Amino acid sequence: MPPHSTDKKSPGPATVAMVEEAAATGRVREIYDDIKATKQIDFVPNFWKTLASHPPLLEQIWGRLKVTMAPGRLDPLTKEMIALAVSATNGCAYCVNSHTAAVRRLGLDDAGLGELMAVVAMFNATNSLAEGYQIEPDVF
Amino acid sequence: MPPHSTDKKSPGPATVAMVEEAAATGRVREIYDDIKATKQIDFVPNFWKTLASHPPLLEQIWGRLKVTMAPGRLDPLTKEMIALAVSATNGCAYCVNSHTAAVRRLGLDDAGLGELMAVVAMFNATNSLAEGYQIEPDVF
Amino acid sequence: MPPHSTDKKSPGPATVAMVEEAAATGRVREIYDDIKATKQIDFVPNFWKTLASHPPLLEQIWGRLKVTMAPGRLDPLTKEMIALAVSATNGCAYCVNSHTAAVRRLGLDDAGLGELMAVVAMFNATNSLAEGYQIEPDVF
Amino acid sequence: MPPHSTDKKSPGPATVAMVEEAAATGRVREIYDDIKATKQIDFVPNFWKTLASHPPLLEQIWGRLKVTMAPGRLDPLTKEMIALAVSATNGCAYCVNSHTAAVRRLGLDDAGLGELMAVVAMFNATNSLAEGYQIEPDVF
Amino acid sequence: MPPHSTDKKSPGPATVAMVEEAAATGRVREIYDDIKATKQIDFVPNFWKTLASHPPLLEQIWGRLKVTMAPGRLDPLTKEMIALAVSATNGCAYCVNSHTAAVRRLGLDDAGLGELMAVVAMFNATNSLAEGYQIEPDVF
Amino acid sequence: MPPHSTDKKSPGPATVAMVEEAAATGRVREIYDDIKATKQIDFVPNFWKTLASHPPLLEQIWGRLKVTMAPGRLDPLTKEMIALAVSATNGCAYCVNSHTAAVRRLGLDDAGLGELMAVVAMFNATNSLAEGYQIEPDVF
Repeated sequence: MPPHSTDKKSPGPATVAMVEEAAATGRVREIYDDIKATKQIDFVPNFWKTLASHPPLLEQIWGRLKVTMAPGRLDPLTKEMIALAVSATNGCAYCVNSHTAAVRRLGLDDAGLGELMAVVAMFNATNSLAEGYQIEPDVF
Repeated sequence: MPPHSTDKKSPGPATVAMVEEAAATGRVREIYDDIKATKQIDFVPNFWKTLASHPPLLEQIWGRLKVTMAPGRLDPLTKEMIALAVSATNGCAYCVNSHTAAVRRLGLDDAGLGELMAVVAMFNATNSLAEGYQIEPDVF
Repeated sequence: MPPHSTDKKSPGPATVAMVEEAAATGRVREIYDDIKATKQIDFVPNFWKTLASHPPLLEQIWGRLKVTMAPGRLDPLTKEMIALAVSATNGCAYCVNSHTAAVRRLGLDDAGLGELMAVVAMFNATNSLAEGYQIEPDVF
Repeated sequence: MPPHSTDKKSPGPATVAMVEEAAATGRVREIYDDIKATKQIDFVPNFWKTLASHPPLLEQIWGRLKVTMAPGRLDPLTKEMIALAVSATNGCAYCVNSHTAAVRRLGLDDAGLGELMAVVAMFNATNSLAEGYQIEPDVF
Repeated sequence: MPPHSTDKKSPGPATVAMVEEAAATGRVREIYDDIKATKQIDFVPNFWKTLASHPPLLEQIWGRLKVTMAPGRLDPLTKEMIALAVSATNGCAYCVNSHTAAVRRLGLDDAGLGELMAVVAMFNATNSLAEGYQIEPDVF
Repeated sequence: MPPHSTDKKSPGPATVAMVEEAAATGRVREIYDDIKATKQIDFVPNFWKTLASHPPLLEQIWGRLKVTMAPGRLDPLTKEMIALAVSATNGCAYCVNSHTAAVRRLGLDDAGLGELMAVVAMFNATNSLAEGYQIEPDVF
């Protein structure tokens, strides 16, 4: 039987054993420290503890995410709202929870979240209409 | 045989006959005029000319889109970027073309578009990882 | 280089060479004949000519589709409308075209198609809302 | 920390505080009453109590859903079956639960549900084949 | 009220009553026995016990799955890895759990699973980029 | 108006101007050379010429793809088959074309491709069934 999380009450236990913070050494520990410092949080989210089951994956995804989320032309709240829009569209529960927490930390309130969700819902609707009628592009 | 667009060269002809502007009367004409005035464009996009094949659908979708896209807590560029993120995630060609034109009209340049696409790509990747490992939410 | 369709003008040529009707022999020919007789059409759609590039796949998919679409508790139009709803949701161009032709042959007019699309759009919207807010089921 | 449902045992707590029936006032209360009367149920589903966290979203989605689901060329059971097909395709747990309850209330039994699922499964399969081989449309 | 699983603590109870092994008779029992023998497991997974709520669906899906998963040009581990890649992309929890168990039984360890997930994440990212920029095919 | 490809006949022109090989300088040129050397091809695919419209995106995605596709526990053909399975599931035309060319270069013939597609179709079907019935995981 594969190893797995010991939390029997959880809705969807990870399919690999997470590397807990206390057990992290070497490069994994360095990345864990970088995650906490960069995101200004005091724990390592399950997402990263799961990727640590294959350290090259942790290294690659964290490295890319850190670059992607650094402030640029788009500000951090806009980037997190886009992340939430993608996650809602894909129906990813972990991701929706994580990015909702992030947009709230960055100041979005219930009304702002409601507006974001209205936009997400609107365009999931129009996407299915454009596909369902096979409408020809008229812009480019 | 069903009626269809007469443009034989198009990659994906609509599966219904569009209601061209010259043929629009009554409520459809009013909505066409409102679309052009609200979006400040001088033509009616194929999307709306297709929905007009069933006027109640045109009425309903345009009414809702107009409300959804009105300025609120989120500004118009942010809303269009979210629309583009949803459309890229769903792979809707018409929608990607349409919303890319919109974000450009609102001032996003190649670098800004590149940053947006980097965020969309990043979270489509992490969404598949969170699902692929069935990672438990740790936030809420 | 892999073999491919010779139609250079097509938007999305198949990635394998189709087995044209004139070239079909043995079991492939029998299935082609069954497709035309069952669907009451006088040509073999590209979908089936493509699957014939690997005859066991043609056999398996046609066999299953024939059983699935046979009249049962759900009538043929309902089944084709469900097929179209799935195809619009997935954004499959070939499939939307094919099933739109089918629902029209079975009598659905523009207004009926518009109503179907309104339902598809509505629930693609609500799906993204239920996911985007991670709403708990309250029924079962 | 964001507000959230106090039900610790639930598989996917909403990411906002729902507006419970006892706390609903004004327009939210009116809509809650309309939902119960229209759907002939004696409670307000979590979906609507969640949207009420941003009343304009509740207003907009309920208004549109009520129009969309009113009897027209397609009967209520057909509309709910299409809703279920979309939800199964998107993998939306809340939605599948909700629309399964609806089709049962409207008389679909296990065999009918099985037939519906067989159609949904069939066309999710063929959609991936048409996309996986990039088959050219042959109908329109 | 529809029948349903009696396990109140489960995250996502099936929306139909499963046919338990002790209750299986006739053709359902034969298929259950074939599933256990073919997969070399000593229980019938919930997936099959659920499909048995409509025996023709059980018959059809098992028959097709058995043929599809038989060794051919692709070996069983490759087929299960592809199944896991599809399931992670679609975000299907049941399926991810089931196919992760299968790849582990066939010898894939945490590093192999990590490599598989890295590939899945990579191409979900590039898919959204190719769609988000509407890039023209350059190969076929 | 945004810049765009001048190929009027293409089914889906990119929404940005690609950086052609003759115009590439500095880091973009280095990456183009690396792409051709690593993939052993004599042209730069449109995908990379499009990402070059925002050089940091080109750098990031190519860097990550090169690491991900390097031989490891999974061989190159297996990785490309997984890429094709993901692309068929998402319905990404560019990606399907590109990865089909890759699996053919690595030796997969029509029968092997047919087997791969049969697996992809099978599990897109079972995914929708597991979601459509909300089946509880029984493995982990």
